[in-house]
Amino acid sequence: MPQLRKDPVLGRWVIISTERGKRPTDFAHAAEAKKGGFCPFDFGNEDKTPPEVMAYRENGSAPDSPGWQVRVVPNKFPALAIEGEVDRAGEGMYDKMNGVGAHEVIIETPDHDANFAELPLEHMELVIQAAQERMVDLQGDTRFRYIQLFRNRGNAAGASLEHPHSQLIALPILPKRLTEELTGSQKYYAYKERCVFCDIVAQEKWTKTRVICENDRFVTIAPFAARFPFETWIMPSYHHTSFEVMDEEARHDFALILKETLLRINVALDNPPYNFIVHTSPAGERDLKYYHWHMEIMPKLTKVAGFEWGSGFYINPTPPEEAADYLREVDITGEENAK
Amino acid sequence: MPQLRKDPVLGRWVIISTERGKRPTDFAHAAEAKKGGFCPFDFGNEDKTPPEVMAYRENGSAPDSPGWQVRVVPNKFPALAIEGEVDRAGEGMYDKMNGVGAHEVIIETPDHDANFAELPLEHMELVIQAAQERMVDLQGDTRFRYIQLFRNRGNAAGASLEHPHSQLIALPILPKRLTEELTGSQKYYAYKERCVFCDIVAQEKWTKTRVICENDRFVTIAPFAARFPFETWIMPSYHHTSFEVMDEEARHDFALILKETLLRINVALDNPPYNFIVHTSPAGERDLKYYHWHMEIMPKLTKVAGFEWGSGFYINPTPPEEAADYLREVDITGEENAK
Repeated sequence: MPQLRKDPVLGRWVIISTERGKRPTDFAHAAEAKKGGFCPFDFGNEDKTPPEVMAYRENGSAPDSPGWQVRVVPNKFPALAIEGEVDRAGEGMYDKMNGVGAHEVIIETPDHDANFAELPLEHMELVIQAAQERMVDLQGDTRFRYIQLFRNRGNAAGASLEHPHSQLIALPILPKRLTEELTGSQKYYAYKERCVFCDIVAQEKWTKTRVICENDRFVTIAPFAARFPFETWIMPSYHHTSFEVMDEEARHDFALILKETLLRINVALDNPPYNFIVHTSPAGERDLKYYHWHMEIMPKLTKVAGFEWGSGFYINPTPPEEAADYLREVDITGEENAK
Repeated sequence: MPQLRKDPVLGRWVIISTERGKRPTDFAHAAEAKKGGFCPFDFGNEDKTPPEVMAYRENGSAPDSPGWQVRVVPNKFPALAIEGEVDRAGEGMYDKMNGVGAHEVIIETPDHDANFAELPLEHMELVIQAAQERMVDLQGDTRFRYIQLFRNRGNAAGASLEHPHSQLIALPILPKRLTEELTGSQKYYAYKERCVFCDIVAQEKWTKTRVICENDRFVTIAPFAARFPFETWIMPSYHHTSFEVMDEEARHDFALILKETLLRINVALDNPPYNFIVHTSPAGERDLKYYHWHMEIMPKLTKVAGFEWGSGFYINPTPPEEAADYLREVDITGEENAK
């Protein structure tokens, strides 16, 4: 079973995959995203993944057979084990617990070569809905305190398969970054009695210099203190705590702005590798005055990473105002369903 | 002038390089470390760098001419500006300040093709001494609160030149990671009345499973909650707050263990790209009961980075105990001065 271990100085939990322990030679040819060849996410290969957890299917086709539009399966090489209890234990001065959790893959379309941003809008809504449903379901498991939704696109961003997919990890702990966001936004609330994210949205809409695009319910910005060039956040314009309980109308508007934002990134930066990560509230906390869900999109353009990892100190060569200008002004006419 | 900006939720400061603003096309061919060709760090090209800040020279050769062993110059493309005051200002709800600081390059040897770990021991001591001298000198500037020493080796780790060099950045703020280490170690001290780093050293020396090598004054370990495969820390075995005031004997032992540790990494992992970062106390704080300097070495073996960046949540595929076994057992006989 994998282990969760806590750094004794920083309090940061880390997953140590004790089962698929990688030896030095395993890194020599670090997995390139497979081009061509066999893909376990294609139609007809449903038996090459663990049995599906859920799927949207058009014709009442049978589980684990073709005919699906969006399909969710357990990760074949999960970072955490689904069976077992969250037993905490010491090891001298150190703290550890069983690596209990869920790790699922959302196969976003049967079309192996699709570009996520170019999926039809209704299909993107289905993908988002599938993620929400799985998150709500996983939150029903009392062992899990946080459900992390993310997408890696491209080898440089950590994707090991090119077939469009995103991932869910259910964790028995809160990730460090989320804890920091909760603490920071609570402090702001204690001082201002307002949500810090609502204030960010208000100031950005007022000054406009970092706004990339917006619609009735959402706004896309280049954040004031962006760590990475062309880092981009999508934020609900009105206070909303949890991604997973967004209703149908909000989901429609979110799909719209996600599509537009990713198309702008794809055109301006020539389909860069990227990660996006949904920052939402802890399991079951759906109505916090101080917390406001959002999505962070990080195109992977630079390699100056290790130093930043180690120091928590970032140097961003592209001012967010300039990034916003580029992304706002790029022409995406006719790109919506391009191939 | 570059700007320092603070994330309003997390309190994390970021450098925004407003002058060398990178446009989308600048990332298309992200700088590969230059192989062959002209190198501004070679003998005879001293006029291609800004004038040297200091150098160790054998024959009383003139500044900015050949004849040096270790040479320190300002970075030609500094992340921060050396001139100016640290003016803090608001921008609505946001906080910013002038990007005042120093950014220097330690050219570690005139030998363009040298492998840092294979430099003669006395030469490594000189490199370390040069870093210490510059750090102490920069700490004399009251605008600077922290001096960050780090080394990027290889393109994947962010090195843009292959000539052996490390870097110093003097900052008017404490980097987030350092603040967290200070807070965490203070809390531990408040509870235990002992230094958490001393306790880590004691437990590691007692259990041995994560010890890679050691000498009279230092120990190299794979940390219990390592974020990355083969992450490796060098720690003083006795309580010591500040890297920059290490005396001659300690410097000798540190050079010895740094050499051995890097040789082990180079042989076991086939000369991987890596970053190392010295974690030392804030400027002028040289005698803290709770803080203990150390060096963190992070070989860059995996690409699954963006997600970890975004969530602060790491998945390490190599248990530290296994990494320590590999690094401890690898044969480095005859590697000390190999080419």
